[in-house]
Amino acid sequence: MSFTPLQAQPVPFVNTLMPQPAHISEGSGNLALGTQFTACEDKFHDGRLDRAVSRLLVRLKSETGLQIATAPGACSATLTVSVDGAGEAIQSDDEDESYSLEVTGDGAHLHAATVVGAIHGLATVYQLVQAAGDGWVMPAVSIQDAPRFRWRGLMIDSSRHWIPIDVIYRTLDGMAAVKMNVFHWHLSDDQGFRIESKVFPKLQELGSDGDYYTQDQVRSVIAYARDRGIRVVPEFDIPGHALSWLVGYPDLASGVGTDGKGNHQGPYAISREYGVFDPVLDPTRESTYQFLDKFISEMTALFPDPYFHVGGDENNGVQWKNNPRIQAFMKAHDLKDTAALQTYFNQKLLPILKKNHKKMIGWDEIFAPGLDKDAVIQSWRGFDSLAASAKAGYGGILSAGYYLDHIDSAEQHYAVDPIPAGSDLTAEQAARIFGGEACMWSEHLSPRSVDSRIWPRTAVVAERLWSPQSVSDVSDMYRRLWVESVRLEDFGLQHLSAEDMALRKLAAPEIATPDQVAPLRIFASVLQPVGFDERYQLQHTSQLTPMDHLIDAVRPDPPSRFEVEAAVAEYLKHPSADSPAHAQLEAWFQQWVTTAPQLAPLMKAPLLQEAAPKAEQFGQLGQLGLDALKYLDAKQAAPAGWKDQSLALLKSAKEPIGKVRFTVLEPLTQLVQSVQ
Amino acid sequence: MSFTPLQAQPVPFVNTLMPQPAHISEGSGNLALGTQFTACEDKFHDGRLDRAVSRLLVRLKSETGLQIATAPGACSATLTVSVDGAGEAIQSDDEDESYSLEVTGDGAHLHAATVVGAIHGLATVYQLVQAAGDGWVMPAVSIQDAPRFRWRGLMIDSSRHWIPIDVIYRTLDGMAAVKMNVFHWHLSDDQGFRIESKVFPKLQELGSDGDYYTQDQVRSVIAYARDRGIRVVPEFDIPGHALSWLVGYPDLASGVGTDGKGNHQGPYAISREYGVFDPVLDPTRESTYQFLDKFISEMTALFPDPYFHVGGDENNGVQWKNNPRIQAFMKAHDLKDTAALQTYFNQKLLPILKKNHKKMIGWDEIFAPGLDKDAVIQSWRGFDSLAASAKAGYGGILSAGYYLDHIDSAEQHYAVDPIPAGSDLTAEQAARIFGGEACMWSEHLSPRSVDSRIWPRTAVVAERLWSPQSVSDVSDMYRRLWVESVRLEDFGLQHLSAEDMALRKLAAPEIATPDQVAPLRIFASVLQPVGFDERYQLQHTSQLTPMDHLIDAVRPDPPSRFEVEAAVAEYLKHPSADSPAHAQLEAWFQQWVTTAPQLAPLMKAPLLQEAAPKAEQFGQLGQLGLDALKYLDAKQAAPAGWKDQSLALLKSAKEPIGKVRFTVLEPLTQLVQSVQ
Repeated sequence: MSFTPLQAQPVPFVNTLMPQPAHISEGSGNLALGTQFTACEDKFHDGRLDRAVSRLLVRLKSETGLQIATAPGACSATLTVSVDGAGEAIQSDDEDESYSLEVTGDGAHLHAATVVGAIHGLATVYQLVQAAGDGWVMPAVSIQDAPRFRWRGLMIDSSRHWIPIDVIYRTLDGMAAVKMNVFHWHLSDDQGFRIESKVFPKLQELGSDGDYYTQDQVRSVIAYARDRGIRVVPEFDIPGHALSWLVGYPDLASGVGTDGKGNHQGPYAISREYGVFDPVLDPTRESTYQFLDKFISEMTALFPDPYFHVGGDENNGVQWKNNPRIQAFMKAHDLKDTAALQTYFNQKLLPILKKNHKKMIGWDEIFAPGLDKDAVIQSWRGFDSLAASAKAGYGGILSAGYYLDHIDSAEQHYAVDPIPAGSDLTAEQAARIFGGEACMWSEHLSPRSVDSRIWPRTAVVAERLWSPQSVSDVSDMYRRLWVESVRLEDFGLQHLSAEDMALRKLAAPEIATPDQVAPLRIFASVLQPVGFDERYQLQHTSQLTPMDHLIDAVRPDPPSRFEVEAAVAEYLKHPSADSPAHAQLEAWFQQWVTTAPQLAPLMKAPLLQEAAPKAEQFGQLGQLGLDALKYLDAKQAAPAGWKDQSLALLKSAKEPIGKVRFTVLEPLTQLVQSVQ
Repeated sequence: MSFTPLQAQPVPFVNTLMPQPAHISEGSGNLALGTQFTACEDKFHDGRLDRAVSRLLVRLKSETGLQIATAPGACSATLTVSVDGAGEAIQSDDEDESYSLEVTGDGAHLHAATVVGAIHGLATVYQLVQAAGDGWVMPAVSIQDAPRFRWRGLMIDSSRHWIPIDVIYRTLDGMAAVKMNVFHWHLSDDQGFRIESKVFPKLQELGSDGDYYTQDQVRSVIAYARDRGIRVVPEFDIPGHALSWLVGYPDLASGVGTDGKGNHQGPYAISREYGVFDPVLDPTRESTYQFLDKFISEMTALFPDPYFHVGGDENNGVQWKNNPRIQAFMKAHDLKDTAALQTYFNQKLLPILKKNHKKMIGWDEIFAPGLDKDAVIQSWRGFDSLAASAKAGYGGILSAGYYLDHIDSAEQHYAVDPIPAGSDLTAEQAARIFGGEACMWSEHLSPRSVDSRIWPRTAVVAERLWSPQSVSDVSDMYRRLWVESVRLEDFGLQHLSAEDMALRKLAAPEIATPDQVAPLRIFASVLQPVGFDERYQLQHTSQLTPMDHLIDAVRPDPPSRFEVEAAVAEYLKHPSADSPAHAQLEAWFQQWVTTAPQLAPLMKAPLLQEAAPKAEQFGQLGQLGLDALKYLDAKQAAPAGWKDQSLALLKSAKEPIGKVRFTVLEPLTQLVQSVQ
């Protein structure tokens, strides 16, 4: 055969951008990407911009298989990057993040005021690349883009389970891909103190099981994040959720001491259990503030971000109420309850933060009379709580509704808006709502499952925070989310492939054949983990619970949920055996019926046993679906008892077994209900 | 629900070790692994041993989900590691690699003479861990183990395609998992010079497209390998395959120079094409040896291994024949042909290597009269060539039969023995055959496909080189290979999940739904890439050919090949509709019939189009299988013409389309032939 040069065929533009830009208009034609693809910087450039451009080129090279030059070249390039200046020396929430992008058949031109804007624009360039015949193209488009909210964050709890640094790096890559700009790093809690302190080394030595980030690693993470337009806000949760501090420094605690004067505390141990614990820092002693002064000075020197998160949540006040010395202190200082004592604590923290040029940020609980006006409230309680603090003049960030561990659907997160339509906030008050943060608490994470808990749902939160409020079509969101999900794996994320890997493990290769993984995959495609509370109740998890069962393998809100729902809705418009929706549904239901018996031997594997009854229901649900289609197609009443039996099956299938639940019960119920 | 402590249930021992140990006997009972699992070193220990033990603990922690202490602890541990001493300061092929391991219900005891032996033993410990109910166990066993061959290598060609350093690291982890001990690093060739030279920086600056390993990176790789009991042997292929050298240093070439006196060469460029090229180093000038002296001294200082690979293969001699000056030199030195001139070249290299305390290793072509007796021959030509050099007193390494780019089956590699049964070598001659090396040439690799080209087949070569010759049961090998394949992904290898990722990409998520990946997976499970030569002919690949089509996604020798073959063989013993083999085959064939129409829309995706006719054949093959089963079950003759039609279909299905071929045609042909 003769040598055929690569040919990119013109293709129509398929908008797969996530987040959607503020303004986009489609031109005509394509820009073909070939081995001669180059990029250049025609105005300002610095190391950060050079690296961002190089990353794009390396990625395009890997993505397209083309041997694209992997360093920015001279300025007669395919992609010209024009940047006005470096932007802020330390990126803040005031950074100009806007950019514009023009792609024509002749070339692409990206313009931004700052390097951060250019980084976002380069993320868009990457998302525009489409396969076209034997080559690759970028469609002709004109984009003017800027974020709706200035604070688009992801919080990761590195305490309850250790999160290896590799996970942090690839998560930052994912965040940059969807233009998020704050990595909120929850570094201490009852279950582990995860950063090296050189001033108080017993914090990590005794409080971490040896799993902590060194200061060098932290500096690398901060630099890596800055290179991607992402700020790093550390959180040290005090005065509650601080048990891991007390292992090395028991004198910080509020418990009644063993000498009867409250002077000897402990011994304390890292908590393996989850929840809210009594031991908290003692806000009445000067020594506590001396300690915090030194510690915070050390940490603020490490983290350049203007904000410093002090947690402040879920202090139950028990130790404060039970300690006569603390009660006496409260009386002496006219502090009427433990909330007032916590505000006193926060007021003592403020000068320490100010001295170190930091603004305080904390959870809802810090919002109390007397709080400094510079403080920012992060709300896990909800919009009403956030609105109240905005009305009181405080900056705020929404996290309620963005809790990834609740295992809500992407659709649910998408519907949560930091400033809901119709809110009664004035423009000035609304401006105090900086944005939002997805929260990844780690009670139920392992290094293998963390990616699928964060991604792809976080991309939807990112879009909610970046794109205009009017971008809200759920079906279009899911269409683009699947593309983005596949694309995110280019950055080393394993949210999809980790399920594949885990299922291969669960199928117990020492007793099953490779072929038996396929039925397990089909089964898993309609399963998802139960939510946080339910799991905790079903299993009483602790830090020592193995996270290697089916619940840890399957993904939250897998595509099946929305796909089956959409197909059923489409089918029910005009039930007919001839409709494409019918064909799709029938194929699925038939597949479930066929797969269920194949699963039976597999479900005897040690880690799958607990979910075996679910596999039986799986086949029954397929049969139910086939029956329903049959009756609906024929507009025929079901035999007596069928409907009751079917609804009973759906009801019992709703109960989680093996800590997983089906994703498809609602549309199936609709089908059954629609039968005469 | 109440809290249930973890309980490991006793399970029977399932031998999944790969490679199989020299001696193993099974005890009774299990050693339960719990959160209290610890390891200690009760005799000698050093940093390398500490790190190896820690790696095992980290991996067990991740594997089992248990919060196992991740540093070796005090010596009343579950696993006691007794090592006599460090072993060689620079690991050579003389290193003692043996170990013994005793596991009882009370604990595990690993003994080795050297740290390298212990590292191999720890790999065995990891492979012994089995899931058991809600916990994990190691079965009681007694193992005495040592390798059959001292040289168990993997060569990777980093030149023709750039192999990112991450791939190198994870490959070393995979090698250690199966007890390989030589990483042979092919660092230069016509298509790229891949290592930093500080003495001759134009080598990498002009010869690599910017893709090369820095000396710091190389040192890290060597240290990483040493920590895993692996030696690193560098290869610089000279005098042929050296075009990339000439880009920066054209005076090294043998071409007739532009000044008529052979003094100005070039200009040369990195070759994008593959093959054998005329430009080679000039062996007649002293300046060549002065250059090589400096360069080799620099590289031997970097690579501590006692061996240095000089390539020496595939020099076509054209430049030597065409250059009057070189012809005159040959006449003057009584060198009758270009092979003699190449031996002259090697003889000039030897003192340079000796001065730097290195032994020469090279491909078959260096085996010529006058070769120094210390030299070692690596044979790509085959056992006869290897035996000839062993008889002549040279050490040898077999690579013929272990070429991974040929896309042979694991079974084929398994059958290749460096000293085949019945060879006529004396014991002394046989002892000169050090072992073998799997070879991963990179003409058709990308960072995404490299893992699946290397793994899991390399594990089979590792077993052939480690285990007793009597370990040769193919069915048992494939059973264990699947387990090992799944296990290897724990080390970050992506040989299985990369296919998943690639298929998701190929399904063109911007036009297909998530659900459509499933049929593509089923289709891909019975496909494999065509072999090296065939691809090169079908496609005329070059370094610039995108490696992102179906051929790059699918895996060599996927499980389907052996599984279908085994099921057909089993079924044909007693054809009956009631046999389990029948049920299995029918399920597969039915699935192909069902899947084929689902594939049709998908095969319109840009990168799948070329393979669309294969998807049609896929359904036809399923129907053929169902028909054959029907006739055979009933011991009934097929209708007139069926057999001819079927054989015609099988014949046409044998032709690769879209550069992929079916894995299941042989057993299908057997089925058809068996019908009356």
